Amino acid sequence: MKQYIFGVDIGGTSVKLGLFQTDGTLLSKWEIPTNIEENGSHILPDINTAIQEKIKEYALDKQNILGVGMGVPGPVEKNGIMHKAINLNWEEFNIVKTAESIFGFPVKAGNDATIATLGELWQGAGKGLNSMVMFTIGTGVGGGVVIDEKIVAGTFGSAGELGHITVNPTETTSCNCGKKGCLEQYASATGIVNYAKKCMTEKQYETSLSLETLSTKEIVSWAEQNDPLAKHIIEHTGELLGMAFSYAGCFLDPDVILIGGGVSKAGDILLNPIRTAYQKHVFHASKTTPILIATLGNDAGIYGSAKQFL
Amino acid sequence: MKQYIFGVDIGGTSVKLGLFQTDGTLLSKWEIPTNIEENGSHILPDINTAIQEKIKEYALDKQNILGVGMGVPGPVEKNGIMHKAINLNWEEFNIVKTAESIFGFPVKAGNDATIATLGELWQGAGKGLNSMVMFTIGTGVGGGVVIDEKIVAGTFGSAGELGHITVNPTETTSCNCGKKGCLEQYASATGIVNYAKKCMTEKQYETSLSLETLSTKEIVSWAEQNDPLAKHIIEHTGELLGMAFSYAGCFLDPDVILIGGGVSKAGDILLNPIRTAYQKHVFHASKTTPILIATLGNDAGIYGSAKQFL
Repeated sequence: MKQYIFGVDIGGTSVKLGLFQTDGTLLSKWEIPTNIEENGSHILPDINTAIQEKIKEYALDKQNILGVGMGVPGPVEKNGIMHKAINLNWEEFNIVKTAESIFGFPVKAGNDATIATLGELWQGAGKGLNSMVMFTIGTGVGGGVVIDEKIVAGTFGSAGELGHITVNPTETTSCNCGKKGCLEQYASATGIVNYAKKCMTEKQYETSLSLETLSTKEIVSWAEQNDPLAKHIIEHTGELLGMAFSYAGCFLDPDVILIGGGVSKAGDILLNPIRTAYQKHVFHASKTTPILIATLGNDAGIYGSAKQFL
Repeated sequence: MKQYIFGVDIGGTSVKLGLFQTDGTLLSKWEIPTNIEENGSHILPDINTAIQEKIKEYALDKQNILGVGMGVPGPVEKNGIMHKAINLNWEEFNIVKTAESIFGFPVKAGNDATIATLGELWQGAGKGLNSMVMFTIGTGVGGGVVIDEKIVAGTFGSAGELGHITVNPTETTSCNCGKKGCLEQYASATGIVNYAKKCMTEKQYETSLSLETLSTKEIVSWAEQNDPLAKHIIEHTGELLGMAFSYAGCFLDPDVILIGGGVSKAGDILLNPIRTAYQKHVFHASKTTPILIATLGNDAGIYGSAKQFL
């Protein structure tokens, strides 16, 4: 008898949904828009409609559905309480209990970056492994920790807040989180561009980078063409990331450390300085930990959401 | 029917043993010397003799003994392989399989600092909690991570190597581990004295500290009497520890963070700057994580060793 799980990844613009078999087969994948009007009160009912339609389409017996796993943009406490989610216009409420009463299925929910990490462990770059730390590097820096194939959520739902590790205690400008010197301030797409701007305004470099068109993509592209400033910027980013990766090694000594998110598309030119800095800073026993790029892309969230039931 | 577990903490000088009931009651606690002669080949047989005598003394039915848990001074891989343990004259071998064949009971083994963390969670400062990170600060700095009441051992058995987190990437002198800028270089008893020496030789301070009698205990004592240099040294130590504690918060958001080991006896004068730095550097959701002093002292190892079976 086959059993099924729905995986739901709720973002500010769209909700990604997946229907999975328990063996990891993705039977169907689709999206619906996120309607954040009226305090986001339509979001869960809209997801319910989408799920019920899919159940009809596949003529599933509801008794064979293990549950609905969700990834949400914010910390979820162990009791199911989710705090303010600005992207969704949600105030604090118990997302697990509320969703269970709407869907009529068991629900599990977690922070989206952590959930994506679980997805990568289940069917992505960490398939077959037991423990993993993932750094997700896009506009910001997020992350997740998986130990023994289970998400580490944290007491306040904020385990895996890897963008807010202090890497520069002497920083004077503030991160979006209110602290100073966070990894996100230097290693996110935004942070990389800010660092480039700082280099270009503080000193004259021979570089093909232009302040007008500056983007992480452009910096990576010029670094690949050996532009000295572009190379320096990517190496600087890699060094900070590699040091943060080494903390993952010292605390958790995981099977693998992944880099996901848009910035991970830079590939080897970023991975190489990360690996060098990781090996320089990690305890010697963990020097050979593989550092790899995530493979599931935007689907990691629906995979991880479903995996919560396994 | 009552069930029993032996907890064994193997150190370079003595082996501490405890006979526990599964409810955490310590029925008997004793020590035997560690005989490291002939490649430490007497250690496990000596432990076996001690255990068998205790079984007779308490007239225990062997069927009611769940097993023998051990804490050892070095990393243990998941398969039971332990690498070179210099303190014990041990070369690489499978400690779990070997001990099981000698004792005739199931055996579980882990790194002593990690095992002590589990002990504190079971019956010490973290009693009743689910997750914990402990920094053990003595001659060196060790540590442990417990998630969901289970030890995080790590792929290479080196999770919780918290003394080797890089806190100063620009350091030029080497740590015992071979890296540069490790927490242990500044926050261990040795590191604190080294930093004091550096301060006293680099610059004239008005201080009651004397280079001849310098010790962590003396520095703490003078800091409590408001000696400016002694206070600066303890605050410097607390700032580095608090930053490392904040990494525990960002990665794992645990229920509690503990400080154990001899240096933790400094108490509030060290805890206060640790808490200040922790709150400055941790992600805001985890700002209220309790930072406490471990309570089991040298018994944490036998408690944690036994808890491995529960």
